[in-house]
Amino acid sequence: MKKVLILGAGRSASSLIQYLLKAAELYNYEITVADSSVELVQLKTQGHKCSRPIALDIADTKRTREEIERTDIVISMLPAFLHPQIAKVCVELKKSMVTASYVSPEMKELDAEARKAGIILMNEAGLDPGIDHASAMKVIDHVHAEGGKLLSFKSYCGGLVAPESNDNPWGYKFTWAPRNVILAGQGTAKYIENGKYAYLPYHKLFTRTEKINVEGHGDFEAYANRDSLSYRSIYSIENIPTMIRGTLRMPYYCEAWNVFVQLGMTDDTYHVEGSEKMNWKEFTDSFLPQSSGDIKKRLAAYVGIPADGKIMGMLEWLGIFNEIPIKLKGVSPAQILQALLEEKWKLKDGDIDMIVMQHQFEYEINNKKKSIHSSLVVKGDDAIHTAMAKTVGLPIGILTKLILNGQINLKGVCIPIVKEIYTPLLKELESLGIKFIEKES
Amino acid sequence: MKKVLILGAGRSASSLIQYLLKAAELYNYEITVADSSVELVQLKTQGHKCSRPIALDIADTKRTREEIERTDIVISMLPAFLHPQIAKVCVELKKSMVTASYVSPEMKELDAEARKAGIILMNEAGLDPGIDHASAMKVIDHVHAEGGKLLSFKSYCGGLVAPESNDNPWGYKFTWAPRNVILAGQGTAKYIENGKYAYLPYHKLFTRTEKINVEGHGDFEAYANRDSLSYRSIYSIENIPTMIRGTLRMPYYCEAWNVFVQLGMTDDTYHVEGSEKMNWKEFTDSFLPQSSGDIKKRLAAYVGIPADGKIMGMLEWLGIFNEIPIKLKGVSPAQILQALLEEKWKLKDGDIDMIVMQHQFEYEINNKKKSIHSSLVVKGDDAIHTAMAKTVGLPIGILTKLILNGQINLKGVCIPIVKEIYTPLLKELESLGIKFIEKES
Repeated sequence: MKKVLILGAGRSASSLIQYLLKAAELYNYEITVADSSVELVQLKTQGHKCSRPIALDIADTKRTREEIERTDIVISMLPAFLHPQIAKVCVELKKSMVTASYVSPEMKELDAEARKAGIILMNEAGLDPGIDHASAMKVIDHVHAEGGKLLSFKSYCGGLVAPESNDNPWGYKFTWAPRNVILAGQGTAKYIENGKYAYLPYHKLFTRTEKINVEGHGDFEAYANRDSLSYRSIYSIENIPTMIRGTLRMPYYCEAWNVFVQLGMTDDTYHVEGSEKMNWKEFTDSFLPQSSGDIKKRLAAYVGIPADGKIMGMLEWLGIFNEIPIKLKGVSPAQILQALLEEKWKLKDGDIDMIVMQHQFEYEINNKKKSIHSSLVVKGDDAIHTAMAKTVGLPIGILTKLILNGQINLKGVCIPIVKEIYTPLLKELESLGIKFIEKES
Repeated sequence: MKKVLILGAGRSASSLIQYLLKAAELYNYEITVADSSVELVQLKTQGHKCSRPIALDIADTKRTREEIERTDIVISMLPAFLHPQIAKVCVELKKSMVTASYVSPEMKELDAEARKAGIILMNEAGLDPGIDHASAMKVIDHVHAEGGKLLSFKSYCGGLVAPESNDNPWGYKFTWAPRNVILAGQGTAKYIENGKYAYLPYHKLFTRTEKINVEGHGDFEAYANRDSLSYRSIYSIENIPTMIRGTLRMPYYCEAWNVFVQLGMTDDTYHVEGSEKMNWKEFTDSFLPQSSGDIKKRLAAYVGIPADGKIMGMLEWLGIFNEIPIKLKGVSPAQILQALLEEKWKLKDGDIDMIVMQHQFEYEINNKKKSIHSSLVVKGDDAIHTAMAKTVGLPIGILTKLILNGQINLKGVCIPIVKEIYTPLLKELESLGIKFIEKES
């Protein structure tokens, strides 16, 4: 009997646990699910005969080590910074490991030792990073195999609320860590377009968006991710003239979000003095030049939007002009904004989420220009098996199974960019309804 | 014979050394000037009979300690981060110390020990911080002594080129560390105005300037400094409704500089790929959305300035549209911009610089509102005794003399905000031509 150890039973582990328990029936696995809260584990394992729910404090290194020792493979759903210390124990005890996180420098350093130990440290095995890698490399390898030359690769992904659950003018609700949404894009976005590097400072990011159409799902808007350039080496397309990655939002979102950026409301570097005595209107006013007169008109003039248009309506809907006390002390503008948005952009009972991903390739073959658009839309089943939980959890589960069953035999630090990994992964994802639609022209 | 040890003989030490050598003749001091370059020291001491030029490597802690041991007072003109380690030796050996740098947390921690040792650690003894403290506190104490209540304190300072040496449309040349000028204002500017906090993100900083008039010297423009709020506690005016500090530039400078901010050209957080193969026009273009057409028109439209106005003329004068190679590799946009500006904004032989400072106070007394404007304009004598070198060096020299001669008897960590310090300091500065003009109304 093969043994799996899942560390962490949080929100994104639900579909993963369900998948592996099902696989366990077929292949006779024992699935140990470990979390500091044993109640949470029991809720997710539901007394399944192949499950072994345990309480485990990851700070208890002795017990954690014992659990790793008795398993065949470890899945870490812990915060990313904890992965290297788990990986070190895995290398020592010769156990493979799977995570959904980016390969950190510390993780990378374990490559030679992992190969020597004969194990795989599979990272970036979720959605983004994860499914994006697999689906992109499938097309890239295909184009190269045909003798084509890639000219452009643009790749977009967004975690959104499904249209049927959308009831607010932003077309957005939180389906993932709110803090990351508030701080998204801070820094400088870098990409290359037609052979020319582009550098976008944060205060311009949400003004230089691109319209993306996904057949059957309408239009979206994309803003550039911070780092598109490093994907050239990850995908071995160093000389591609255009490489852009972006995040998808519904139309108008970026224009309205840009108002917060322009005002400085997403700043997380200082504490707002006296915020505990402020109301929302006063907070908003603290970012405007002083003068009398209607705050909405002053804000509109300051950031250059119509005082009675769509964007102002979106801002009003959030309540940033209300005279309701903030009641927060010693917090940054970003934290204050987050408190407001968490209330307004909360998923309601019955709401379902949606993942949208689109790769746009342009290439040249036999002196002809061609393009491939590869699109994925996944909706959540319910509040537990969200699109996010499925698209993050299922690839982890599938890759774990493929490793356990000997269908992936690579060693060392890996990500799902090679055929041996992405072919069976994408095939099984398809059977689970996570299917890219490819359109060539 | 009293002994003074000056550590560091760089640009800003020239006027200080000259002042102390003159004082040495009167009061029989021995002035040891120590620098890693003994040639530099000899150039500044010119064989003066009271001087003792020595070569000293500050990393040689044993010799540095010996030099501190044989002196009565230490002046550190070293980089600020080195001050605490020098201060610790001073405390141990019971020697007073003077610096022009802000009191760091490590310096502050030495207060009790310094008092016990019976010595003074005098910091912030230059121009800004330094002269600003002394001149501000003189007015603040005066208003309070009269029974007035302060309503507003705005304080501005700028290091500029003197009008007679100005020959470029920016009205600016480097008279101080270029890197600090390029990165100035990054972060968030915080101040309070009419009892309301104001938070300005960097991308709005140079658009919200204030016009300042200095009688006899015309108009200047001020942008807000990052931290105005902390000055309320420094000056014991915690409840003042308006407290703003700003940096002075010539008119149009801020509007033109804002173009670089909007483009992202002052970003120091990443290296520009392929800059060694770019010319200035291509570098500028990398911050613009891609399209064909005249680069000047595209830039003008992107940042919202007229394509043929004053601001565009200032940008053209710098050469950012020229097809001249940059020839720099592995550098940030800010470093590339600095290279261009260092060439264009270089002081020519014979050019002189200018320091402008203005404090604007508003206060209430007997139910009447009054105001005091206190202004200082200092011009450089020549390329060595610049306004910057004089206004930084002379207060250090004066305070050193006052300590040595027993006219300042405070102990512990001090800055020049108390009457015992600022009264004799401002008096002697006046006699040296550094004189504030006060205007009441």
